[in-house]
Amino acid sequence: AAADVEAGKARAAVCAACHGKDGIAQIPGYPNLAGQNEQYLVSALNAYKNKQRSGGQATIMQSQATGLSDEEIANLAAFYASLPAGGSN
Amino acid sequence: AAADVEAGKARAAVCAACHGKDGIAQIPGYPNLAGQNEQYLVSALNAYKNKQRSGGQATIMQSQATGLSDEEIANLAAFYASLPAGGSN
Repeated sequence: AAADVEAGKARAAVCAACHGKDGIAQIPGYPNLAGQNEQYLVSALNAYKNKQRSGGQATIMQSQATGLSDEEIANLAAFYASLPAGGSN
Repeated sequence: AAADVEAGKARAAVCAACHGKDGIAQIPGYPNLAGQNEQYLVSALNAYKNKQRSGGQATIMQSQATGLSDEEIANLAAFYASLPAGGSN
Protein backbone atom coordinates (compact mmCIF):
# COMPACT_ATOMS: atom_id res chain seq x y z
CA ALA A 1 0.00 0.00 0.00
CA ALA A 2 1.24 3.50 -0.76
CA ALA A 3 2.18 5.58 2.27
CA ASP A 4 -0.52 7.91 3.56
CA VAL A 5 0.75 11.44 4.17
CA GLU A 6 -2.42 12.55 5.96
CA ALA A 7 -2.34 9.56 8.30
CA GLY A 8 1.31 10.32 8.94
CA LYS A 9 0.48 13.91 9.76
CA ALA A 10 -2.10 12.79 12.30
CA ARG A 11 0.28 10.28 13.85
CA ALA A 12 3.03 12.93 14.02
CA ALA A 13 1.19 15.08 16.56
CA VAL A 14 3.29 13.60 19.36
CA CYS A 15 6.50 14.11 17.38
CA ALA A 16 5.95 17.86 17.03
CA ALA A 17 6.95 18.62 20.61
CA CYS A 18 10.57 18.02 19.71
CA HIS A 19 10.71 17.97 15.92
CA GLY A 20 8.35 20.89 15.31
CA LYS A 21 4.96 21.07 13.69
CA ASP A 22 6.67 21.89 10.38
CA GLY A 23 9.50 19.36 10.92
CA ILE A 24 11.97 21.97 12.12
CA ALA A 25 13.30 20.94 15.51
CA GLN A 26 12.29 23.02 18.50
CA ILE A 27 15.19 21.85 20.63
CA PRO A 28 18.93 22.18 19.87
CA GLY A 29 20.44 18.78 19.26
CA TYR A 30 17.33 17.29 17.71
CA PRO A 31 17.19 16.75 13.95
CA ASN A 32 15.05 18.65 11.51
CA LEU A 33 12.87 16.20 9.59
CA ALA A 34 11.25 18.48 7.01
CA GLY A 35 12.10 17.38 3.49
CA GLN A 36 14.29 14.53 4.68
CA ASN A 37 14.58 11.52 2.39
CA GLU A 38 11.61 9.21 2.89
CA GLN A 39 13.63 5.99 2.71
CA TYR A 40 16.12 7.33 5.23
CA LEU A 41 13.33 8.20 7.65
CA VAL A 42 11.93 4.66 7.37
CA SER A 43 15.41 3.25 7.97
CA ALA A 44 16.06 5.52 10.96
CA LEU A 45 12.71 4.79 12.62
CA ASN A 46 13.28 1.07 12.20
CA ALA A 47 16.77 1.40 13.66
CA TYR A 48 15.35 3.10 16.76
CA LYS A 49 12.54 0.55 16.98
CA ASN A 50 15.05 -2.29 16.80
CA LYS A 51 17.30 -0.59 19.39
CA GLN A 52 20.10 -0.29 16.85
CA ARG A 53 20.68 3.31 17.85
CA SER A 54 21.90 4.34 21.27
CA GLY A 55 23.79 7.30 22.67
CA GLY A 56 22.67 10.91 22.65
CA GLN A 57 18.89 11.15 22.92
CA ALA A 58 18.36 7.77 21.26
CA THR A 59 16.54 6.22 24.22
CA ILE A 60 13.75 8.76 23.74
CA MET A 61 13.35 7.68 20.13
CA GLN A 62 13.59 4.00 21.05
CA SER A 63 10.55 4.52 23.28
CA GLN A 64 8.68 6.48 20.64
CA ALA A 65 9.37 4.02 17.84
CA THR A 66 8.84 0.78 19.70
CA GLY A 67 5.07 0.83 19.25
CA LEU A 68 5.03 1.86 15.59
CA SER A 69 3.82 -0.56 12.93
CA ASP A 70 5.47 -0.75 9.51
CA GLU A 71 2.50 1.14 8.12
CA GLU A 72 2.77 3.91 10.71
CA ILE A 73 6.50 4.23 10.02
CA ALA A 74 5.83 4.48 6.28
CA ASN A 75 3.16 7.13 6.83
CA LEU A 76 5.31 9.20 9.19
CA ALA A 77 8.22 9.08 6.75
CA ALA A 78 5.99 10.14 3.87
CA PHE A 79 4.60 13.02 5.91
CA TYR A 80 7.98 14.45 6.97
CA ALA A 81 9.46 13.94 3.50
CA SER A 82 6.55 15.92 2.08
CA LEU A 83 7.25 19.01 4.17
CA PRO A 84 9.37 21.80 2.67
CA ALA A 85 13.00 21.60 3.77
CA GLY A 86 13.88 24.57 5.93
CA GLY A 87 10.36 25.01 7.23
CA SER A 88 7.20 26.71 6.15
CA ASN A 89 8.61 30.21 5.70
CA ALA B 1 37.73 26.77 19.67
CA ALA B 2 34.88 27.77 17.39
CA ALA B 3 34.06 25.31 14.65
CA ASP B 4 35.65 26.07 11.28
CA VAL B 5 33.17 25.90 8.41
CA GLU B 6 35.87 26.12 5.73
CA ALA B 7 37.87 23.29 7.29
CA GLY B 8 34.67 21.29 7.49
CA LYS B 9 33.97 21.93 3.83
CA ALA B 10 37.42 20.65 2.90
CA ARG B 11 37.04 17.57 5.11
CA ALA B 12 33.59 16.90 3.61
CA ALA B 13 34.92 16.14 0.13
CA VAL B 14 34.69 12.41 0.82
CA CYS B 15 31.14 12.77 2.22
CA ALA B 16 29.82 14.32 -0.98
CA ALA B 17 29.72 11.02 -2.86
CA CYS B 18 26.69 9.99 -0.85
CA HIS B 19 25.44 13.14 0.87
CA GLY B 20 25.90 15.50 -2.08
CA LYS B 21 28.17 18.47 -2.58
CA ASP B 22 25.35 20.72 -1.32
CA GLY B 23 24.31 18.31 1.46
CA ILE B 24 21.41 16.85 -0.52
CA ALA B 25 21.81 13.09 -0.69
CA GLN B 26 22.60 11.56 -4.04
CA ILE B 27 21.35 8.13 -3.08
CA PRO B 28 17.83 7.19 -1.89
CA GLY B 29 17.94 6.10 1.70
CA TYR B 30 20.74 8.44 2.70
CA PRO B 31 19.97 11.55 4.72
CA ASN B 32 20.16 15.10 3.51
CA LEU B 33 22.51 17.07 5.75
CA ALA B 34 22.05 20.60 4.42
CA GLY B 35 20.77 22.93 7.12
CA GLN B 36 20.59 20.16 9.70
CA ASN B 37 21.00 21.17 13.35
CA GLU B 38 24.68 21.49 14.19
CA GLN B 39 24.41 19.86 17.61
CA TYR B 40 22.49 16.94 16.15
CA LEU B 41 25.16 16.38 13.52
CA VAL B 42 27.86 16.31 16.21
CA SER B 43 25.78 13.83 18.21
CA ALA B 44 25.11 11.61 15.19
CA LEU B 45 28.75 11.52 14.09
CA ASN B 46 29.85 10.63 17.61
CA ALA B 47 27.21 7.89 17.77
CA TYR B 48 28.57 6.36 14.55
CA LYS B 49 32.15 6.78 15.76
CA ASN B 50 31.29 5.01 19.03
CA LYS B 51 29.43 2.25 17.16
CA GLN B 52 26.17 3.22 18.85
CA ARG B 53 24.35 3.06 15.53
CA SER B 54 23.88 -0.12 13.55
CA GLY B 55 21.38 -1.38 11.01
CA GLY B 56 20.67 0.10 7.60
CA GLN B 57 23.82 1.65 6.15
CA ALA B 58 25.32 2.40 9.57
CA THR B 59 28.43 0.29 9.05
CA ILE B 60 29.47 2.64 6.26
CA MET B 61 29.19 5.60 8.60
CA GLN B 62 30.95 3.75 11.41
CA SER B 63 33.92 3.36 9.07
CA GLN B 64 33.80 6.97 7.98
CA ALA B 65 33.49 8.40 11.48
CA THR B 66 35.98 6.18 13.27
CA GLY B 67 38.96 8.29 12.27
CA LEU B 68 37.42 11.70 12.96
CA SER B 69 38.71 13.87 15.78
CA ASP B 70 36.39 15.98 17.93
CA GLU B 71 37.59 19.01 16.00
CA GLU B 72 36.89 17.43 12.62
CA ILE B 73 33.42 16.41 13.79
CA ALA B 74 32.72 19.95 14.97
CA ASN B 75 33.93 21.40 11.67
CA LEU B 76 31.90 18.98 9.56
CA ALA B 77 28.77 19.69 11.60
CA ALA B 78 29.28 23.44 11.25
CA PHE B 79 29.76 23.09 7.50
CA TYR B 80 26.61 21.06 6.85
CA ALA B 81 24.53 23.18 9.23
CA SER B 82 25.64 26.25 7.27
CA LEU B 83 24.28 24.96 3.96
CA PRO B 84 20.78 26.03 2.88
CA ALA B 85 18.17 23.39 3.68
CA GLY B 86 16.75 21.94 0.50
CA GLY B 87 19.91 22.55 -1.49
CA SER B 88 21.43 25.36 -3.47
CA ASN B 89 18.58 25.93 -5.90
